Amino acid sequence: MRNLTLMTDLYQLTMMNGFLKQGMEGNTAVYDMFFRKSAGDSTYSVFAGLEQLLEYIENLEFTDDDLKYLSGLALFDKNFVDYLASFRFSGDILSCREGDIVFANEPLIRVSAPIIEAQLIESALLNIINHQTLIATKASRVRYASYGGELLEFGLRRAQGPDAAIYGTRAAIIGGADATSNVLGAKLFGVPARGTHAHSWVMSFPSELDSFRAYAKTYPDSCLLLVDTYDTLKSGVPNAIKVFSELAAIGKKPLGIRLDSGDLAYLSKKSREMLDEAGFTETKICASSDLDEEVIADLKIQGAKIDIWGVGTKLITSENCPALGGVYKLSALEKDGKITPKIKISDNIAKITNPGLKKFVRLYGEDKKAVADLIMLADENINASVPLTIFDPVETWKKMTLTNFSFREILIPVMERGARCYESPQVKQIREYSSEQLAMFWDEYLRLNRPHIYKVDLSDKLYDLKKQMLSNYGNK
Amino acid sequence: MRNLTLMTDLYQLTMMNGFLKQGMEGNTAVYDMFFRKSAGDSTYSVFAGLEQLLEYIENLEFTDDDLKYLSGLALFDKNFVDYLASFRFSGDILSCREGDIVFANEPLIRVSAPIIEAQLIESALLNIINHQTLIATKASRVRYASYGGELLEFGLRRAQGPDAAIYGTRAAIIGGADATSNVLGAKLFGVPARGTHAHSWVMSFPSELDSFRAYAKTYPDSCLLLVDTYDTLKSGVPNAIKVFSELAAIGKKPLGIRLDSGDLAYLSKKSREMLDEAGFTETKICASSDLDEEVIADLKIQGAKIDIWGVGTKLITSENCPALGGVYKLSALEKDGKITPKIKISDNIAKITNPGLKKFVRLYGEDKKAVADLIMLADENINASVPLTIFDPVETWKKMTLTNFSFREILIPVMERGARCYESPQVKQIREYSSEQLAMFWDEYLRLNRPHIYKVDLSDKLYDLKKQMLSNYGNK
Repeated sequence: MRNLTLMTDLYQLTMMNGFLKQGMEGNTAVYDMFFRKSAGDSTYSVFAGLEQLLEYIENLEFTDDDLKYLSGLALFDKNFVDYLASFRFSGDILSCREGDIVFANEPLIRVSAPIIEAQLIESALLNIINHQTLIATKASRVRYASYGGELLEFGLRRAQGPDAAIYGTRAAIIGGADATSNVLGAKLFGVPARGTHAHSWVMSFPSELDSFRAYAKTYPDSCLLLVDTYDTLKSGVPNAIKVFSELAAIGKKPLGIRLDSGDLAYLSKKSREMLDEAGFTETKICASSDLDEEVIADLKIQGAKIDIWGVGTKLITSENCPALGGVYKLSALEKDGKITPKIKISDNIAKITNPGLKKFVRLYGEDKKAVADLIMLADENINASVPLTIFDPVETWKKMTLTNFSFREILIPVMERGARCYESPQVKQIREYSSEQLAMFWDEYLRLNRPHIYKVDLSDKLYDLKKQMLSNYGNK
Repeated sequence: MRNLTLMTDLYQLTMMNGFLKQGMEGNTAVYDMFFRKSAGDSTYSVFAGLEQLLEYIENLEFTDDDLKYLSGLALFDKNFVDYLASFRFSGDILSCREGDIVFANEPLIRVSAPIIEAQLIESALLNIINHQTLIATKASRVRYASYGGELLEFGLRRAQGPDAAIYGTRAAIIGGADATSNVLGAKLFGVPARGTHAHSWVMSFPSELDSFRAYAKTYPDSCLLLVDTYDTLKSGVPNAIKVFSELAAIGKKPLGIRLDSGDLAYLSKKSREMLDEAGFTETKICASSDLDEEVIADLKIQGAKIDIWGVGTKLITSENCPALGGVYKLSALEKDGKITPKIKISDNIAKITNPGLKKFVRLYGEDKKAVADLIMLADENINASVPLTIFDPVETWKKMTLTNFSFREILIPVMERGARCYESPQVKQIREYSSEQLAMFWDEYLRLNRPHIYKVDLSDKLYDLKKQMLSNYGNK
């Protein structure tokens, strides 16, 4: 892990210097990380990035070189630079688990720390969580569309720099990809690497057939051939069948073919027919070429015979919505043991924050399917043995009463007094966990277009606190 | 620089293993990196990322741990893993300079190397160049819209991971940003860091006025206040004016205010009036909030009084087009001193490559403005003392004859026999260079919407070679 301590917005440092100068540095501040809308058309998001966030925080340390650089900016007191020299994060953090299914306005991460410390980590925290949650969510939707087939992450060459490829691979696996072409990602996160050959392999030989034979000779037990370098149906597939027959003759079982251009519905159906007629009914057809969840869904509707989906650019960049707008907002200040809830007012009602020290729970019906999430104050409890009435925080007349329900608190402690108290599972286990969580939601919430909106309500107590704070502000 | 040797697509390694097995590993291959379309609505791109590409290549080295991992995949011959243990890149690379203005189909990077080496670097080369060229181009367009004002890169929290923030900052500066909020980016690349305070600063004090006073006390010589935490015109600007007056009373000159929400045209005009009336005519107004080149252009048309533009999410992710589709295609093979040009055929005419060992030149008219670019074979020369007739490679009847023209070859050697032979200028100098290059293009090519298309033609010789190769293929 690189030292990313200086990867922060300058205003975090100017504010920290100010807090120190004001003697406010030790006041405990509570910040919530949340987003106001899932990316793109999704109603849910798949939370990811916690492991890299914890590594970042554990590694926080200003080097001598950093301190020299900061001193040279002629912005900061010597006192502040001395403070930074021994900077360590000493706060508490609660967080969702990676792979959790989460919704707009839920406090996904809650940081309680001396305000000077909580401020520093904002920029990197958002960078890491916004990125991985964005890509895990996109992968989850591509997974949804390609369900029943295999999903390969192919985006390395189009990712926004090395980290976007490496951690994008990680997030894609968490969201549901089965494997990746990115060898470094595969190694780092213990997931399968996949890939065969490119057009350049075919072009490096006198003929396509020569190139296929050379490939089959090198990989007789895992022969998958790219058939679209010259002409898929006239040259690629016939040549592949010739080589597959040669493999079969020596007792080897070919894997299949890959299509990387042209109309994938038409070509896959024709290729399937040709392969089947030649007796290679068990070979697979892999397709790539600017795929995303919408194109995959369309191809499936048209009966495309595709078993393996290689998804690159549009997954690794979340092309239809390349940023998740996660924010980190002050929700409370603590001084001498007294907690003062804080609210950010805005003309835009969606930008008004939920005040106070909070948690959230997921409510499940009798069938164990998720019904609604409830954001509440941290000291509130739910009694599942009596009916619970919840209401929409905007259209407050919309109410629902739950009986025979169960619930689960989503946030768990991951850091206490600056020390990590949580070990992340392996990426493959996170993927498994996420898939189990997603299965607890009705399909109606997961639909690609215009999904049903999942309820995220506020507890009576939190709603009243918010209303009162807004009304106090209005009376000023 | 981290060791990114394993950051490659698995198929590069499977092909490399195959080339070794076939005894082809030493054959020289020539690859061109180019793109088929600039990102988004731009007709040009700003080339960037070369420095990080060269660092990557210089640092190529498989660690023992990498080799152990690869051996464990049960895909490769021991012979190949032994080869990788002493892998070094030994080829030649020509490239554009960073900051060069480039167009579709131009060979931006030309790699000549043993095919086994040239193959390995494809994925990382594309990752690095695609990313930085994408962001430099986006920044250039935002710069174009915000011309006359100052442009700040504010995207750290929404970038796709740490590298996307760090190298995105670098690319944004190359494309025209004046400064960044990202302290690590500013330090690494020697560019100005900028930032003041956030809403959380204001919320951490009993009142907005208290928070402004505390900020002014901490930074009396660089006081810029964020005025939209509660109510911009009723509270923020009046409180800022109060504090500015207090600063003025002690002989200090306030910098200005920042607007981060609401209607920026209306609020900036009203704020400007209020500041001017109070005598603070020299204070600046900084605006941020989901800006991009289109919104900036619209705000300017409406007479918004904004001096400094803070552009975050939409710049750092190139939100309207988050990937540049750069590719790396085999253009020639060399064996025993004989060069064989190679072409990739496709049903899609735009996907047919230009064969052979190539270079390209920029042609300038008498007024020193760029007229057209010409892609030609490497051994061709231009004689500027006689008229030159160029023609469109698709609509071949469109011809133009140049007299009194000058020209410049764009590609320069950056690596020879695996050793770097090019020192990158400082990022600020690259920015300056890029701005000079852009100034040699007519405004018609730089327009935000529906710009005029710049001519990129093929030399007669290259055109004939391509036509002949396509015709040979068709006759097969």
